Amino acid sequence: MLQGKHGSAFAVFLASNFALTMLAAVLTVFVAPAAAGSGIPEVKAYLNGVDAPNIFSLKTLIVKIVGCIAAVSSSLHVGKAGPLVHTGACIASILGQGGSRKYHMTCKWLRYFKNDRDRRDLVTCGSAAGIAAAFRAPVGGVLFALETVSSWWRSALLWRAFFTTAMVAVVLRALIDFCKSGKCGLFGEGGLIMFDVTADYVTYHLVDLPPVITLGVFGGILGSLYNFFLDRVLRLYNLINEKGKTYKLLLAATVTVCTSCCLFGLPWIASCKPCPTDTEEACPSIGRSGNFKKFQCGMNEYNDLASLFFNTNDDTIRNLYSAGTDDEFHMSSILVFFAASYFLGIFSYGLALPSGLFVPVILTGAAYGRLVAMLIGSQSTLDHGLFAVLGSAALLGGSMRMTVSVCVVILELTNNLLMLPLVMLVLLISKVVADAFNTNVYDLLVRLKGFPHLEGYAEPYMRQLSVSDVVTGPLQTFSGIEKVGHIVHVLKTTGHNGFPVVDEPPFSDSPALYGLILRDHLLVLLRKKDFIRSCTASTLNASKHFTHDEFAKRGSGKQDRIEDIELSAEELEMFVDLHPFTNKSPYTVLETMSLAKALILFREVGLRHLLVLPKSSKVSHVCASVTLLLFMLSISGF
Amino acid sequence: MLQGKHGSAFAVFLASNFALTMLAAVLTVFVAPAAAGSGIPEVKAYLNGVDAPNIFSLKTLIVKIVGCIAAVSSSLHVGKAGPLVHTGACIASILGQGGSRKYHMTCKWLRYFKNDRDRRDLVTCGSAAGIAAAFRAPVGGVLFALETVSSWWRSALLWRAFFTTAMVAVVLRALIDFCKSGKCGLFGEGGLIMFDVTADYVTYHLVDLPPVITLGVFGGILGSLYNFFLDRVLRLYNLINEKGKTYKLLLAATVTVCTSCCLFGLPWIASCKPCPTDTEEACPSIGRSGNFKKFQCGMNEYNDLASLFFNTNDDTIRNLYSAGTDDEFHMSSILVFFAASYFLGIFSYGLALPSGLFVPVILTGAAYGRLVAMLIGSQSTLDHGLFAVLGSAALLGGSMRMTVSVCVVILELTNNLLMLPLVMLVLLISKVVADAFNTNVYDLLVRLKGFPHLEGYAEPYMRQLSVSDVVTGPLQTFSGIEKVGHIVHVLKTTGHNGFPVVDEPPFSDSPALYGLILRDHLLVLLRKKDFIRSCTASTLNASKHFTHDEFAKRGSGKQDRIEDIELSAEELEMFVDLHPFTNKSPYTVLETMSLAKALILFREVGLRHLLVLPKSSKVSHVCASVTLLLFMLSISGF
Repeated sequence: MLQGKHGSAFAVFLASNFALTMLAAVLTVFVAPAAAGSGIPEVKAYLNGVDAPNIFSLKTLIVKIVGCIAAVSSSLHVGKAGPLVHTGACIASILGQGGSRKYHMTCKWLRYFKNDRDRRDLVTCGSAAGIAAAFRAPVGGVLFALETVSSWWRSALLWRAFFTTAMVAVVLRALIDFCKSGKCGLFGEGGLIMFDVTADYVTYHLVDLPPVITLGVFGGILGSLYNFFLDRVLRLYNLINEKGKTYKLLLAATVTVCTSCCLFGLPWIASCKPCPTDTEEACPSIGRSGNFKKFQCGMNEYNDLASLFFNTNDDTIRNLYSAGTDDEFHMSSILVFFAASYFLGIFSYGLALPSGLFVPVILTGAAYGRLVAMLIGSQSTLDHGLFAVLGSAALLGGSMRMTVSVCVVILELTNNLLMLPLVMLVLLISKVVADAFNTNVYDLLVRLKGFPHLEGYAEPYMRQLSVSDVVTGPLQTFSGIEKVGHIVHVLKTTGHNGFPVVDEPPFSDSPALYGLILRDHLLVLLRKKDFIRSCTASTLNASKHFTHDEFAKRGSGKQDRIEDIELSAEELEMFVDLHPFTNKSPYTVLETMSLAKALILFREVGLRHLLVLPKSSKVSHVCASVTLLLFMLSISGF
Repeated sequence: MLQGKHGSAFAVFLASNFALTMLAAVLTVFVAPAAAGSGIPEVKAYLNGVDAPNIFSLKTLIVKIVGCIAAVSSSLHVGKAGPLVHTGACIASILGQGGSRKYHMTCKWLRYFKNDRDRRDLVTCGSAAGIAAAFRAPVGGVLFALETVSSWWRSALLWRAFFTTAMVAVVLRALIDFCKSGKCGLFGEGGLIMFDVTADYVTYHLVDLPPVITLGVFGGILGSLYNFFLDRVLRLYNLINEKGKTYKLLLAATVTVCTSCCLFGLPWIASCKPCPTDTEEACPSIGRSGNFKKFQCGMNEYNDLASLFFNTNDDTIRNLYSAGTDDEFHMSSILVFFAASYFLGIFSYGLALPSGLFVPVILTGAAYGRLVAMLIGSQSTLDHGLFAVLGSAALLGGSMRMTVSVCVVILELTNNLLMLPLVMLVLLISKVVADAFNTNVYDLLVRLKGFPHLEGYAEPYMRQLSVSDVVTGPLQTFSGIEKVGHIVHVLKTTGHNGFPVVDEPPFSDSPALYGLILRDHLLVLLRKKDFIRSCTASTLNASKHFTHDEFAKRGSGKQDRIEDIELSAEELEMFVDLHPFTNKSPYTVLETMSLAKALILFREVGLRHLLVLPKSSKVSHVCASVTLLLFMLSISGF
């Protein structure tokens, strides 16, 4: 570019972007399709009880890391926060399943975490660590996990997540310290506060409230529109991606070429501006990212649009957030950048490569804030850099609908606590405005991915229904001592993951619910083939025959299948005593229970199965109506 | 003092302190005893389900506000954070019960909040607003409510609490703006960040970790000792206070006289220090609070101990947190101040006046941090002001055991995000160390006050018990259509607040649980006297005869009593149809359910009553074993 060879410069730019995008896309498509997208919907769905295949496998983890680096480096308009959350959750889950047996990386000590509850807690902490690492915002990470990702929270989790992010902060601090000498490229840049660039002392008065409220209202509208467009584009992309792997790669190739053309082409429409004389920065800047890009301009001139487009995302945000730079950008440049960033963000997300939404929205919001500041002009005395920060908050609030966590993340990004009341106000206004139009972006993505999601609140119609209205049959129960053939038959013909065990005479006076047995545990019993010949209570000492390890939760996505277990005809006629392996304290509701209240129980206690008991105590009815309530969660493998 | 009249100065000091303390104590003892103490234990107990008498009445609110101002002004070593939390919760609760009918201050619109759930949510938001106002820390307030006060949380509450504290922040900011001109005395001082005094740019390295870890360990030990001593002193005070109102006043008088003597006497043991020459502050400062107190010293000299003792709490904290003041204080002065502050805090809390624990602990912790910094000496390059901040964190972590909320509060107090990793580390270490010794200070206070408290986790022994082991009899049930006389008899002879309603033949084929009816609702029915003459299903249209208002939750502490309802002998022989007034969807468990799991259900879903169903479905047993599980919460009036 310095020598005026614009054509070959563009060729190099395009080629390197194309190569990096293709690397990410090929890895994702051929090695680990589960690594595509941000990963936050998958983590959210997992914590809600839906364990999609391979989302936490070692392969996914590696592709996510490599692919995310390639995708972000390829100038695509994608972020790194979402992939980092997924990475954190992946590492946590792999630790929780005791390493990866497939690749012979196991650790004996980790087997204590091999159960659903601990793995869920670990994944929650892992996602907190992801945001903490992405934005160097430890408290924001904890709140993000609490507000957005997790469906279920307990107080002990709060300080465990806090401990996780504290470790992230300490390690980050140590690495930044180590990198102070410039050994690690851009890593240490920005220190622990990534965008510590706003004015030292912020003053604002009541007269600044109307512009800020306007910013919030339109931020809400733009945010909900963002979600709307994203929804449409993703539906279109899904149609294309379904056609095959080649189409996925073609789509990624098209978008990266278009993006490169945009980034290289649009700065040409901006006129060159003369360098300010009073700045400390070198102007124009040559050979480094940052502000005052030279691009096609002459000496002592800079292209303001190139400073925005032709930069790393971090540097662009830093430029926009900087205080005292009200005259650095043309209004037309900001407008072009805002529009391009808005739509590039929407069109880049659905590609088959690791990509986050957080940073594009922050970037677009910052441009939006500057735009509003310029339109308001002298009506407000606030710095345009502050407007950029508030604009980011408005768009984040409008699109992701988070409040406390975004607020804290923005504080931790900019180190400007005095802005707190304004940021809170903008966030709340934009959230409320956007909530009037559609749902938040993560719920939308979860729905598009086809994950069932159980909300924490009951819909009004659920108050009119009782659980007996939604129970589906036929009911499959087991006796306390059950014939092997019957168990095999039931497991083969149904997809249920839990079955009620009912004691019948002579083992009890009348049919009575004994408990609930899980499919996984039945499979362990069948595999062990410790059967008895007759239908009598066995004297088997379960704790001697079985070890804790055998019933431990298998690795994510790995499940025994009934088809893999071969049993002889003789064995099928034998019996097995289910009593020692049954959960004797399942949660139950009466059939007359309101569906809304059953839902609350299901969500608040974090259940996977809920037994429905008959209201009437007539003997003849009992057995038939001890019904397994098939809430949507039971269909998952969780 | 300036004229050397030390005797009369002391007399004025003592008299004004004595008068203010006595004002607070007399108000508390004679008008609203519930206003004594910090109020956080009461709010915590309320949110756990225990509604102690008068804790949220208008009288309590007024005494709390006036008394807190008097107590803090009287130089007693008490804080304002706890009382502000109680004040916020009080206002929220009064709003939630639609104003105060006793004082003819009601608002029709507020009646929509007249139910337990909305009032609980309002009180949670109110306590968040209290911390937000006390420390000008809106995010810290939300987290405090989440981490410490509330027993039950849902995601919608997060942004509602956030909205509340955002309003607090905006109003605070507007008032500070208004007070910039100096119209409001000390109010505007410090701005939105109360202690924005630490070094501009903090640098710390790995070598600073050992001193910081040491600080955390000893902070944890000192914090748990603080709790231990506080427990002993409060037990002693309880013995004294039980003897009568005069003893309460005498105790308060004794402590205020001792405190005044300490504050005035101890500075004499410090030698005068020459004023530093390079400071911008006036030295010695005369006629205002702040640093460099003259006290008995000559011109160009100051008494460093007086700067700590003879100041408002806020100014003392600001002095201790200030960066670049390593030589301002003698080590002996800091030691004396630390010891005095530690024990004055413990001895001042249990008096019969509004008093908080937060500020004394912060103050003591700041002195502790400075002390450690001086002991370490040149081993660490960190500023002593930073050590003071970390010391506060250590003692707060050791005494209150909060993590995220204290961390955020400290950040919002000092505006120093770069300290985040160190603050997190210190908090976690001190919490873990202190947890090894005893429980946190709020649980301790809740226990001392005699409030039952249901923890969110199950004790190990509960896993060995089933709910049938803890159910107490005799069971009282009602039929769907019940004789008035029987209802009156049961209400008079038991203290239960909920009763199962069981339909028996001919209304159902066999005895079946219909639902749960509350004592309050039975009293409404009895008061209305809408009885029927025979035991047949009535054609009464309940929604016509009763309005929503009649079943609305009464004001805090106000309850109908069965003794106040007079019924004639004829009316006692009549019947009442309970069906329309029964909760048809009570939560139930089987009698074989593990006690631990029932507890989880009780806490997570936020229940007050839990019905225990028989496991066996034999007709003859059902009616006798539909048992009301008397968890400790049912005994409260909540």
